[in-house]
Amino acid sequence: MPILNVKLPQSKYNIHIIKWNLDLVAREIKTLVSSEKIFIITNKTIAKLYQQKIQKAFSKSFDLEWLVIPDGEQFKTLNTCEKLHETLSRKGAHRKSTLIALGGGVVGDITGFVAATYMRGIDFIQMPTTLLAQVDSSVGGKTGVDLKTGKNLVGAFHQPRAVFILTDFLKTLPTREFKCGLAEVIKYGIIWDATFFTFLEKNAPSILKLDAEILTHLIATSCLIKTKIVQKDEKEANLRAILNFGHTLGHALETTTGYKTLKHGEAVALGMLFALRLSNELGLTQKDLTPRLDNLLAKLQISLRLPKINITQVMTAISTDKKITSKNIRFILIPKLGKSIIKELDLKVVQTCLKNHLT
Amino acid sequence: MPILNVKLPQSKYNIHIIKWNLDLVAREIKTLVSSEKIFIITNKTIAKLYQQKIQKAFSKSFDLEWLVIPDGEQFKTLNTCEKLHETLSRKGAHRKSTLIALGGGVVGDITGFVAATYMRGIDFIQMPTTLLAQVDSSVGGKTGVDLKTGKNLVGAFHQPRAVFILTDFLKTLPTREFKCGLAEVIKYGIIWDATFFTFLEKNAPSILKLDAEILTHLIATSCLIKTKIVQKDEKEANLRAILNFGHTLGHALETTTGYKTLKHGEAVALGMLFALRLSNELGLTQKDLTPRLDNLLAKLQISLRLPKINITQVMTAISTDKKITSKNIRFILIPKLGKSIIKELDLKVVQTCLKNHLT
Repeated sequence: MPILNVKLPQSKYNIHIIKWNLDLVAREIKTLVSSEKIFIITNKTIAKLYQQKIQKAFSKSFDLEWLVIPDGEQFKTLNTCEKLHETLSRKGAHRKSTLIALGGGVVGDITGFVAATYMRGIDFIQMPTTLLAQVDSSVGGKTGVDLKTGKNLVGAFHQPRAVFILTDFLKTLPTREFKCGLAEVIKYGIIWDATFFTFLEKNAPSILKLDAEILTHLIATSCLIKTKIVQKDEKEANLRAILNFGHTLGHALETTTGYKTLKHGEAVALGMLFALRLSNELGLTQKDLTPRLDNLLAKLQISLRLPKINITQVMTAISTDKKITSKNIRFILIPKLGKSIIKELDLKVVQTCLKNHLT
Repeated sequence: MPILNVKLPQSKYNIHIIKWNLDLVAREIKTLVSSEKIFIITNKTIAKLYQQKIQKAFSKSFDLEWLVIPDGEQFKTLNTCEKLHETLSRKGAHRKSTLIALGGGVVGDITGFVAATYMRGIDFIQMPTTLLAQVDSSVGGKTGVDLKTGKNLVGAFHQPRAVFILTDFLKTLPTREFKCGLAEVIKYGIIWDATFFTFLEKNAPSILKLDAEILTHLIATSCLIKTKIVQKDEKEANLRAILNFGHTLGHALETTTGYKTLKHGEAVALGMLFALRLSNELGLTQKDLTPRLDNLLAKLQISLRLPKINITQVMTAISTDKKITSKNIRFILIPKLGKSIIKELDLKVVQTCLKNHLT
């Protein structure tokens, strides 16, 4: 099983990629944690599928408390965090307690933020159950919740003590969710690693069949790329921003459609295509790249259905995004496959391109 | 005017102690801040007294936005933070924006936490208006809010970019609040600096008359002691815990009386006396110290009225405190004036002493 080491100025931890072995995970966690009591935060869907199995494997080593939240991005709020904080406090969680985030990106982001802020910071471990969380949100220490005005506007940088990625979780993941994760996987190929992009093109059928070996390589490579970028720039002073490729428009599409019509990965897929078109219009990128991405998205059956949108609303959402500093916006553009650049663009340039391609 | 330098692994900043000069403060802030827009978070009481004056002095250099919250510890909640986050987002605050905390400890703790978590961390400046905030909460980077289950249970370490302490703010501070601040000032003498304790004994009448020179020395010395301790142990791995002298019982008294009957400083004064008695009972401290503290508290007219309390409730509150790890509790005890030690005590020892002295 691949183990990746993440080394950051203030913390280091391992990412373990395993097909399925809960006993092994329990033993590994035992070596990291001092207290007997562990708090698992998960959602109703995952609890239904896995609570019994995990309880059985972990209860040999730990006294487990389960904190179950509702399933969905609409619960990624400070209100949910406060309920968790209060439950932790009532159940006696203290400074040496450890939380486990068992679930997708929403559970991971919430649990990480609760860990970052409970008693000014306690330990947490990531056990991501969706592909999106396994290749993206569980790695890198970004935690947070949404506001009515935008996604992830409240948060903290808080690194996990360890990440355990069990690929068999993907067997119960709805296909649409799985494909959303693939959008982020493709992103790593575009911004960082042309060889990996080619690997995805070649292995699309095996990926869709959840071939274990291919999945392990796909997840390990994605985590490795993200880890490399995060190690170079943990707090997103500069380089880390390239991970936002496709996300500026992606987030705006999610916000303006109320986080309901589009899944995150679908929004990112649309955002990546748009960013390539923008790169094209600015004369920046290889001409064949947009059709190659279009083609790969099709091979992996990632939906590109664009909901009815209002350009003005999308522009407003883009303007309240974290990546904006004045009248310009930092956009991640692609000069060639596997390379990315951060460019300050006039909001008007973005608006014009949006009008050309999204209406 | 005294300027203290705080140097921490990840940040450094100055604490400026000035009688009154808003133009100077505006000029200093100008050198620290890149954006034109500044967001001042304050409460209704302070806004009424100072908004006009500060608007006049600062508007030469900045585009000011005022975010005014209700006055009182009962508003130190995640709910207040979320409203502030959303207002900031609507008013266009971004990653390079700076907040100013203008007010007492509640405003400082809330603003600091909002700054720590808005877009995963933006800059903030402290302008404390109460003595308690000037000598304690504005220095050291602890930020946070309360839960129903206890004080400061949610928070983050987030250092300010600068602290501006204007002693003339104390002229409009209610006497009871001023005396609450003095309780924390006395604490520094007890745990760290016997000479400072003697200074307070000698100058009690001038302190109560708000003599500017005496106040400046008192504030500068307090900040210097806190700074020294925080520099040695920013994240409270060990030494910093001595700043909690008097606070374990203090917090519990506040919690059990619903944050209404007792002011924080009054609770701390009671907590300090109790910790000395506990030190005495364990045969740890100089015998004359308890009467000396009693005497100084009387000279400075700090109220020691104990509200009707329920020992069981107080013990429950102590047990959910951040400083507890198992059945023991870390208590700060005083072997001699100006020295402090951290000791793990059995909760039962604490309970017995509580019964002896508080009922």
